[in-house]
Amino acid sequence: MAFPGSNAMAVAFDEARAAGARGEVPIGAVIVDAAGSILGRAGNRTRERNDPTAHAEVLAIRAAGAVLGSERLIDCDLYVTLEPCPMCAAAIGFARVRRLYYAAPDPKGGGVDHGPRIYAHPTCHHRPEVYGGIGEAEAATLLRDFFRERR
Amino acid sequence: MAFPGSNAMAVAFDEARAAGARGEVPIGAVIVDAAGSILGRAGNRTRERNDPTAHAEVLAIRAAGAVLGSERLIDCDLYVTLEPCPMCAAAIGFARVRRLYYAAPDPKGGGVDHGPRIYAHPTCHHRPEVYGGIGEAEAATLLRDFFRERR
Repeated sequence: MAFPGSNAMAVAFDEARAAGARGEVPIGAVIVDAAGSILGRAGNRTRERNDPTAHAEVLAIRAAGAVLGSERLIDCDLYVTLEPCPMCAAAIGFARVRRLYYAAPDPKGGGVDHGPRIYAHPTCHHRPEVYGGIGEAEAATLLRDFFRERR
Repeated sequence: MAFPGSNAMAVAFDEARAAGARGEVPIGAVIVDAAGSILGRAGNRTRERNDPTAHAEVLAIRAAGAVLGSERLIDCDLYVTLEPCPMCAAAIGFARVRRLYYAAPDPKGGGVDHGPRIYAHPTCHHRPEVYGGIGEAEAATLLRDFFRERR
């Protein structure tokens, strides 16, 4: 992968694979600051934690907030292997994330460019810049293989 | 208040007032099981925890999931003093909450009956039954007084 932040997306894929190995849906997310340093990285842990909100993005946001001592992740970017769901899209907005990079689009569960399109409403206070389709093939393969094994 | 679950909503208001006393936006939430027992109760803690996802509903869902040992809160109902935002509305759907009771509608930030209307999309997997406007005057007063003091 050769694009700005390709290392961050590679780490997000590492987190996605680790989540899959734990029996979680294989999605990973990484938050980097303006200098490119990783402030938070996580994979899904909804099953392990009995917590339906423990999506990769939420866990990464929470970790970065703890590092910064702030609920606002100013000038930070989020990389995630799948288009965020509506819950995570709204959380990304609340966190004031600067740029959102996602790999595979998610027509069934996404909330950024599909479904509720969280950032498209006038009541949305903060919209990150959104860049989709980065590393899409890898993300799609990872998810397809995961669900194929379980069906 | 005289309606089914009025005790649960009274507890949600207690949590809202406690949140306001901590300097948080005064919103409270309670999860009860089918027998009416409280499994989770919380007020906002976004500032205290440096966590933009620490809304009352998310914290109550997380607490109830820990009690039940499940990420799905089957046959549970959620009471909250303000119409949930899109993040919380989606989380409530993921948690498979049976019924959602909210006090004041939130035209500016709500995601159930305003804005993205999370449950209105065909991609939404689970829709709770929604009952709004329960104890609305009390909730509206609580929020208005809170923001008046801070402006």
